[in-house]
Amino acid sequence: MRSHYCGEINESHIDQQVTVCGWVHRRRDHGGVIFIDLRDREGLLQVVYDPDNPEPFMLAEKVRSEYVLRVTGRVRRRPEGTENANMPTGQIEVLGLELEILNHSETPPFQLDDEDVAEEHRLRYRYVDLRRPEMLQRMKLRSKITTEFRNYLNDNGFLEIETPMLTKATPEGARDYLVPSRTHDGAFFALPQSPQLFKQLLMVAGMDRYYQIVRCFRDEDLRADRQPEFTQLDIETSFLDEEAIMPMMEGMLRHVFAHVLEIPLHDPFPRMTYAEAIRRFGSDKPDLRIPLELVDVADVMQGVEFKVFSGPANDPAGRVAALRVPKGGELTRKEIDDYTDFVSIYGARGLAYIKINDIAAGREGLQSPILKFLPDDAIEAILQRTEAENGDLIFFGADKATVVNEALGALRVKLGHEKGYLEHGWQPLWVVDFPMFEWDQGSQRWYSLHHPFTSPNEADLDKLESDPGNCGSRAFDMVLNGTEIGGGSMRIYREEVQRRVFKALGIGEGEAQEKFGFLLDALHYGCPPHGGMAFGLDRLVMLMTGAQSIRDVMAFPKTQSASCLLTQAPSPVSEAQLRELHIKLRNPPGKEKPGG
Amino acid sequence: MRSHYCGEINESHIDQQVTVCGWVHRRRDHGGVIFIDLRDREGLLQVVYDPDNPEPFMLAEKVRSEYVLRVTGRVRRRPEGTENANMPTGQIEVLGLELEILNHSETPPFQLDDEDVAEEHRLRYRYVDLRRPEMLQRMKLRSKITTEFRNYLNDNGFLEIETPMLTKATPEGARDYLVPSRTHDGAFFALPQSPQLFKQLLMVAGMDRYYQIVRCFRDEDLRADRQPEFTQLDIETSFLDEEAIMPMMEGMLRHVFAHVLEIPLHDPFPRMTYAEAIRRFGSDKPDLRIPLELVDVADVMQGVEFKVFSGPANDPAGRVAALRVPKGGELTRKEIDDYTDFVSIYGARGLAYIKINDIAAGREGLQSPILKFLPDDAIEAILQRTEAENGDLIFFGADKATVVNEALGALRVKLGHEKGYLEHGWQPLWVVDFPMFEWDQGSQRWYSLHHPFTSPNEADLDKLESDPGNCGSRAFDMVLNGTEIGGGSMRIYREEVQRRVFKALGIGEGEAQEKFGFLLDALHYGCPPHGGMAFGLDRLVMLMTGAQSIRDVMAFPKTQSASCLLTQAPSPVSEAQLRELHIKLRNPPGKEKPGG
Repeated sequence: MRSHYCGEINESHIDQQVTVCGWVHRRRDHGGVIFIDLRDREGLLQVVYDPDNPEPFMLAEKVRSEYVLRVTGRVRRRPEGTENANMPTGQIEVLGLELEILNHSETPPFQLDDEDVAEEHRLRYRYVDLRRPEMLQRMKLRSKITTEFRNYLNDNGFLEIETPMLTKATPEGARDYLVPSRTHDGAFFALPQSPQLFKQLLMVAGMDRYYQIVRCFRDEDLRADRQPEFTQLDIETSFLDEEAIMPMMEGMLRHVFAHVLEIPLHDPFPRMTYAEAIRRFGSDKPDLRIPLELVDVADVMQGVEFKVFSGPANDPAGRVAALRVPKGGELTRKEIDDYTDFVSIYGARGLAYIKINDIAAGREGLQSPILKFLPDDAIEAILQRTEAENGDLIFFGADKATVVNEALGALRVKLGHEKGYLEHGWQPLWVVDFPMFEWDQGSQRWYSLHHPFTSPNEADLDKLESDPGNCGSRAFDMVLNGTEIGGGSMRIYREEVQRRVFKALGIGEGEAQEKFGFLLDALHYGCPPHGGMAFGLDRLVMLMTGAQSIRDVMAFPKTQSASCLLTQAPSPVSEAQLRELHIKLRNPPGKEKPGG
Repeated sequence: MRSHYCGEINESHIDQQVTVCGWVHRRRDHGGVIFIDLRDREGLLQVVYDPDNPEPFMLAEKVRSEYVLRVTGRVRRRPEGTENANMPTGQIEVLGLELEILNHSETPPFQLDDEDVAEEHRLRYRYVDLRRPEMLQRMKLRSKITTEFRNYLNDNGFLEIETPMLTKATPEGARDYLVPSRTHDGAFFALPQSPQLFKQLLMVAGMDRYYQIVRCFRDEDLRADRQPEFTQLDIETSFLDEEAIMPMMEGMLRHVFAHVLEIPLHDPFPRMTYAEAIRRFGSDKPDLRIPLELVDVADVMQGVEFKVFSGPANDPAGRVAALRVPKGGELTRKEIDDYTDFVSIYGARGLAYIKINDIAAGREGLQSPILKFLPDDAIEAILQRTEAENGDLIFFGADKATVVNEALGALRVKLGHEKGYLEHGWQPLWVVDFPMFEWDQGSQRWYSLHHPFTSPNEADLDKLESDPGNCGSRAFDMVLNGTEIGGGSMRIYREEVQRRVFKALGIGEGEAQEKFGFLLDALHYGCPPHGGMAFGLDRLVMLMTGAQSIRDVMAFPKTQSASCLLTQAPSPVSEAQLRELHIKLRNPPGKEKPGG
């Protein structure tokens, strides 16, 4: 139906006859001539109809926004002075000789170049929204990104293997989407939160190197950038340890960035221990583009009268940290109040600060509501340790360590974005040496920091029972610009270790057998040492395209209440369907629904 | 951990020291020396431990089948006379210098080379079953096939775009797997039977060329080669008609066959109309490797006394057809009885036949229980029309056309396979010119032969209301060796036509709006002409690998009762989970389940 895409016509086609198809992006009459900007996937093309060709001209007069046209015409240079340097096809235009209206369009629900359309409206009419050039560009880039991931993995001997979507439901699988079975009364499948166990079984099966770009599901309250279904690049290898897997994985990221964005990433990626990341950045996914760092000052606060500081300073679970903000002296009272509100989200009960007006003037040169509570030596130690300079401001966090880390970690990122401390570029990072477990105060039990199949450090095996809190794991996370884009680990491959880890997590023998019996079985039929990673594809594409939300890199995302505004899913079903599935509604509607 | 894969070591490595990892495939003591065939993804390697190296030798003595080993040793030529020509590594062996037992294995549930393991047992221990070389080979080939599909599509400007798995449930979606929503009391998602509507919306959005290798779901009773979840290669294009799409699609198949199997397929694929396929082969997916054909003889049977033939011959909905079986005279009475039983599956009430012993002898040279019912001229016409020769047998079908087509069509294939009429090689074929609708006697309504979004022929638009049975569609199916591997069509892109097709299918305005309102909406905002195809990937991989079942080309398939023997899915869930989802069981178990 066409000879070219609109966007690919250029000066080399001048005097040629071309046929193009696309949508009417803009149409205007000017001096008795009709100009149509015709749009297709590859770009815009100006088509001109003049009354010398009365038949197509009369058709062109009827054309409206988003009509679908087929145009045949001759490419010519635009008249001097009418070129458009902002358009790739801006040097030429097509003199329309024929015109076929392939389809009409009602007035679209919004203009493609309107940047203030409510997201609900965009999602409701997603097929119009996706026509916007930046959305199209994101879909293209996403496709290119997955292609390059696959190219790299195929070249490195990985097999793409599909794992089931209808998987085993486990009692207490709180975030599982469930699927009632028709053939098994009272039984349910679960949609996978990840193919973790299947990929481990593929290693037991000797597949050696596996990958899959796979849909995963998690039924949880949706934060700004979560979706009930999301896409994971899932990878597993046998007979390679972390020192082999990590270079291979960062090589993959370098390949993708080089081939998609033509951007070279660090080689190798820097590595940082979990402990250092928490100490310096209050986070296990630090954004290294932001030069602000947390500095421990608990030791100098232990003796002060001021209980707000000395309390946490003397609490083994507490932390007192300072965050120097260069030129932060310029922050207004109002801004500081806003930041105080901000850290309260993370449980911080306040946000003490010191402004450094004139460091040479000692106490007189400082400005702070808490100054009076701090002795000279403490102040001096703080200034020295934070390397404060005139014009700076120092924020303080003093609380349980988790509160201080979260609050100052988040404040650091917020200041970075809002106050111009964010450096350009890409800062990938490995975070390593994670603890195996973290203690949950509420339920009074240990949880896996990653998942229960992560291998403990060989050297810490004896701590599984005696000192789980100090048992290290063989996990490694890939962080990019403050986002965890991939989580990886060496897995447990010995049945005995797996049983001990389940036990440490409070999972009894019976429960372990019921939930993970097939894995434990597999472990005693010759399981190789293995490990792998899982990357959040949506998140990574979002970073690479500069989108603000993962919804903007998915063709048909759901809202925060997990519904699809386009198709109106989820929706009621008929009583007959429910009966087939051996279930009924807990709160049936007052009257029968249509079709129900 | 290793320097090479086992299977890649050859004579070029002689005298080199290598390290390999893998599973103990076989271990035997012979003349005081221990031989281990070590297996990994790439093949087998013979490793020899002799008592000169006492430490690894003693370890090697402990080794059993399926233990996981790491072996370091020196490659050497096998002693003369001990080479194994059946093994790619059969010229060499590795003299083991070091041995590390990476993991133990219990006695495996079955031997890998045992070909008589029950499928239930194989599925229960799938991670062992997948170690069998033919299963591994299928997984490798599948990965290569998907890679080559993607390469071709990427090179042809297709974008890979993901569509949702949690989609709109429709009342009466009889084969839908449903997913209860936690956030919307009483509402359900459905897992997609195909991404048909989403890919059409992507065309409305201007994506121009889309593909996806995507999981689809159908909750139906499973025949031998159906699975509740299956994989589709899904393709859609805009501004291309069937004359552009079909060559592009067969080009893709040629590409994949050439790159994966090094087999050239026909260029172009032959085409056959639906009517011709039914007439000659009784099937819209004829296996052209089988030269047997149906021949119509209704006209010569219209006047015969024999009601079994004359009835259907005079019924407009009937058919009387002959199937000549060359050398079929050798069939025994028992075999003919078995074939009679076979066609009864398809509703045939008998299977008349004539054996041709001596065609020159006229009636005397024939042998048949029905001979006495047929006049000479009918017999002569049959012999002439079927081109029968001495030693042949002619089967007859006489019934409703659908019964004759199904019965003789299936018999033809059965004879082809069992009696050696099957030619080797690959016979791809396009079947075209399908009817839009078929009449269902039971529900007294028209059904889509493909789906309700298939475009009618432009020339037949006026028959949508007046004569739906003679309305042709723009559908095209790709058939390979008697299997429909892909279904395609041009889609309806005008709202008015879509509404008329819904009406012809007995879908009222309200129902159309409720189920497909978002599609109808999209059609009036500038929908381009578009069409596409969907290929059943599992089926195609099965054909290409020579597997007997699609279960053999899936890593973790389900049984015919839609359960996973490996993980024991589906399974009961807790009362708390059901409560969260606002549903309850129709038949709750007598007592609380553990964890429930």
